[in-house]
Amino acid sequence: MDTAPTYEEDHIKGHKLVRVEEAALHAFVCRVLTVRGVSETHAAQVATVLLASDRRGIVSHGISRLPLYCSRIDVGKDNPQPEVQVVKDFPSAALVDGDRGPGMVAGTFANQLAIDKAKKTGTAWVMVRNSNHYGIAGFYPMEAARHGLIGMSMTNTTACVVPLWGAVRRLGTNPIAAAFPTREGPPVVVDMSTSTVTYGEMEVAKLAGRSVPQGWGVDVEGRHSEDPQAVLGGGGLLPLGGTREFGGHKGYCLAFLVDVMSGVLPGAGYGPFTPTFPLYQQPLMDKVGNGIGHAFGAFDPEAFGGLDAFKDGMSEFVQTLRDTRPAPGQEKVLIPGDPEKIREEQTDRLGVAVLEKVYEALQKLATDSQVEGPPPPRDA
Amino acid sequence: MDTAPTYEEDHIKGHKLVRVEEAALHAFVCRVLTVRGVSETHAAQVATVLLASDRRGIVSHGISRLPLYCSRIDVGKDNPQPEVQVVKDFPSAALVDGDRGPGMVAGTFANQLAIDKAKKTGTAWVMVRNSNHYGIAGFYPMEAARHGLIGMSMTNTTACVVPLWGAVRRLGTNPIAAAFPTREGPPVVVDMSTSTVTYGEMEVAKLAGRSVPQGWGVDVEGRHSEDPQAVLGGGGLLPLGGTREFGGHKGYCLAFLVDVMSGVLPGAGYGPFTPTFPLYQQPLMDKVGNGIGHAFGAFDPEAFGGLDAFKDGMSEFVQTLRDTRPAPGQEKVLIPGDPEKIREEQTDRLGVAVLEKVYEALQKLATDSQVEGPPPPRDA
Repeated sequence: MDTAPTYEEDHIKGHKLVRVEEAALHAFVCRVLTVRGVSETHAAQVATVLLASDRRGIVSHGISRLPLYCSRIDVGKDNPQPEVQVVKDFPSAALVDGDRGPGMVAGTFANQLAIDKAKKTGTAWVMVRNSNHYGIAGFYPMEAARHGLIGMSMTNTTACVVPLWGAVRRLGTNPIAAAFPTREGPPVVVDMSTSTVTYGEMEVAKLAGRSVPQGWGVDVEGRHSEDPQAVLGGGGLLPLGGTREFGGHKGYCLAFLVDVMSGVLPGAGYGPFTPTFPLYQQPLMDKVGNGIGHAFGAFDPEAFGGLDAFKDGMSEFVQTLRDTRPAPGQEKVLIPGDPEKIREEQTDRLGVAVLEKVYEALQKLATDSQVEGPPPPRDA
Repeated sequence: MDTAPTYEEDHIKGHKLVRVEEAALHAFVCRVLTVRGVSETHAAQVATVLLASDRRGIVSHGISRLPLYCSRIDVGKDNPQPEVQVVKDFPSAALVDGDRGPGMVAGTFANQLAIDKAKKTGTAWVMVRNSNHYGIAGFYPMEAARHGLIGMSMTNTTACVVPLWGAVRRLGTNPIAAAFPTREGPPVVVDMSTSTVTYGEMEVAKLAGRSVPQGWGVDVEGRHSEDPQAVLGGGGLLPLGGTREFGGHKGYCLAFLVDVMSGVLPGAGYGPFTPTFPLYQQPLMDKVGNGIGHAFGAFDPEAFGGLDAFKDGMSEFVQTLRDTRPAPGQEKVLIPGDPEKIREEQTDRLGVAVLEKVYEALQKLATDSQVEGPPPPRDA
């Protein structure tokens, strides 16, 4: 009863996957971007963030979106040659302007700045305005964890979530991500939207002709709806918790917090003023120039209990949770990021998994861009 | 369907309230603490945090708990004369040891330290170990907001929440709080546990003889249960979202994050090793000496888009949310902290609301402590 397939599992169900060599796919992403005037450095940053998503099995946020990122550049929405600038600079804080470039460019820069500052002062936060969609939120904290720090990130996104008791979209799915370094292996990663489900999960239900549970979304009148088309076509998603009875006010509070920290604080768009990601959508309320906002935090465990003690504590906490007796019908208790960690290991062994229909879209993108196509499938 | 009464409304339903003059009640709290050897300064800190809860209508976390705080001192669990110490000190970070005193003492100190540091460096986080229960999480960020900063706080708590798919309590209700300064009036406050409901809400349902919805808690076998007694008597609460289908993995991630940041990072207890608050409960897994942990963050808007621009953005965002067309059957869309703000205004006009049964407990506490009793009810 409590083992719904994940969105990503749903997303790939019934589709053929091809496996592609990662470095060659990375080079392909760079080709289609540099031909659009993006510098090699920036193109590599975008490619790394996109493939980090596919590596983790999050096919929705990875290379499947490359054609959209390219279209956004082609129609002038995203600036292919941004000059990312530090607008304000403090020992443990900075404000960065993304110059309307791809969010991965401003994001990579701002996240590294937070890491560098935290290593000097103990903790730091860098906020970004005038940016665009930055890929998976979890990528940035994972970078911090590679430096032995705790990382955090938030971003606001296209408004598609109603506030609790509201009938109109006012908030994004506004993710919160964090990564914690561990003694062995990759960090423990939290990476979650603050809505009950994502827009993509609703789209998958619609494509599959399935109804959705009460508590996932509302129709255009603001009534709870089981019809994904009603939610997508003018209604909206509900914040995590769904109803007041199940804590929907808490999801609303979290979405609000993310929009304030990553939108209001740096002076980016926020709530319904956040620019939209898909080209066919117009912002609900237009407010030009502030772009999407991001927040990047870094914490050096050496400034608290020490990195060694932190890793020991993480090992013990994680093992204690793994050892928890499972509920009836469940195999075991997972740790945040477990499913994605398994996919990363698969990627290292087998190459990046790409949906066949996405692979075909990449071939078309290559033709349209007049560059060499994506690398051949590994098993071809 | 979506207008369940709040826990606090449930909590006071059918009970008589008395209104008491705030300053006199504050002095009473100080009397019963100083007679136990607590310094006047520390007693005033505890009193201020407890009454901040009652002021906001959160009667569960306020003066109703004073007898328990006193008992904890009387039996030697809480140190009445803690020497709170800065163990590590960095420009934007510090580790504080609470010396096993009341959490409000270490909390007030550490929170002010975070505020002072953030004013110098832009942002700062101070973590506390070896502390005890610190009252409402929202108090501390509200202090930061009085200084024109954004404040955040987290704390771990007695383990009473099961991890998603687990059958045994492993996490606390682990609250997250934040406060955002505004142009006029008090800050906007987020203050929420990361479980679907609190332990107290389950207790209220049990006392009222009510069943609870599926998704609030599990019984001792880990099965979803509608019987509050089964949840309280050996079962456990579910993380925010409840089931996988409704995002219970996200609530689990949040509870985990809070336990790592406020427990593992400073070297306090965490998860099932967190000391219990009620005297009748034993820790699930004993690990002596690390106490409860807290995290306090402060962000100076001047280091980002500027305080004036931040307040303008907050006004516009809040008004946009208030203007959202409500869902059918709902009067209006609220802003985080709205219900508590109304209670604060009532308190300023009418005095602190105390449940009659709590008032009687305070009278008994005065007698037992051989100090002058609580101030008389205002309408007496």
